[in-house]
Amino acid sequence: MTTETTTDATITTPVEREIHIERIFDAPRERVWAAYSRIEQLVQWWSGGNGFDVERWEFRKGGHYRFVETSDGETHGFEGRFREITPQERIVQTFEWDGMPGHVAVDAASFIDLGDGRTKVVTVSQYHTEEERDGMLRSGMETGLNRSYRALDALLSRSA
Amino acid sequence: MTTETTTDATITTPVEREIHIERIFDAPRERVWAAYSRIEQLVQWWSGGNGFDVERWEFRKGGHYRFVETSDGETHGFEGRFREITPQERIVQTFEWDGMPGHVAVDAASFIDLGDGRTKVVTVSQYHTEEERDGMLRSGMETGLNRSYRALDALLSRSA
Repeated sequence: MTTETTTDATITTPVEREIHIERIFDAPRERVWAAYSRIEQLVQWWSGGNGFDVERWEFRKGGHYRFVETSDGETHGFEGRFREITPQERIVQTFEWDGMPGHVAVDAASFIDLGDGRTKVVTVSQYHTEEERDGMLRSGMETGLNRSYRALDALLSRSA
Repeated sequence: MTTETTTDATITTPVEREIHIERIFDAPRERVWAAYSRIEQLVQWWSGGNGFDVERWEFRKGGHYRFVETSDGETHGFEGRFREITPQERIVQTFEWDGMPGHVAVDAASFIDLGDGRTKVVTVSQYHTEEERDGMLRSGMETGLNRSYRALDALLSRSA
């Protein structure tokens, strides 16, 4: 049996306290932007197939969001606030998991038009400390992230 | 006219991205702790005499708080979440001002019994970047902080 090559995200830590994530999507930038900025599209990929409740969604500078994900009978709350929204280009938001309240990362996602109908999303996550950053890397984040991105691939191909 | 010597807080920046604040209060630790942990006491000093609405107050690990202060016709929202609460000893919480949403500091306040009926409160605030830390220092924070601490002095002397 052969395994299809999957386009996993590239995850690196070139700078102290940061995680850099790069992933290319086979869709134009406006479609990828819509998948990140419209809640009815976000719910179709963010949790990668897990149960997903949206308790708050205020997509504007200063607005809050709060999601509750359910998997294997466990619930996990995630929340934060939007710092910057530049349409089609950039979303900066805080990110906090209920399991470690008060440990806040700042996630900056940039949407880069590759000019060939594809879009690269570069996300830089900054933590207050290196320990928090490394804890996130050890948490199984990579698996969950790639599952979410594959769900996003599927959404983008459906809406093509 | 002579000016009374006031016991201003000592504010230093010994570590990158941090602000350290020390202040001694003329009251036993349990009284100072009560002034920080009971909302009906906190409202009497936190805003230093400005209008003060409590929109949320969940004093437990993972709980949220949100205050709205009014002065000179302007309103300022402040919010965050409790990371750690060790009774009589330590409160760690995030702190975010509506005017710069998504810029989050972590404030760790330690309550030290000086053994002579006085209490030292040491607060260490950590920012994601040095720019955010320096912006806070330039914001007039010191004036507001000392006004709040003097209001706390007054509360502690009333409840003596």
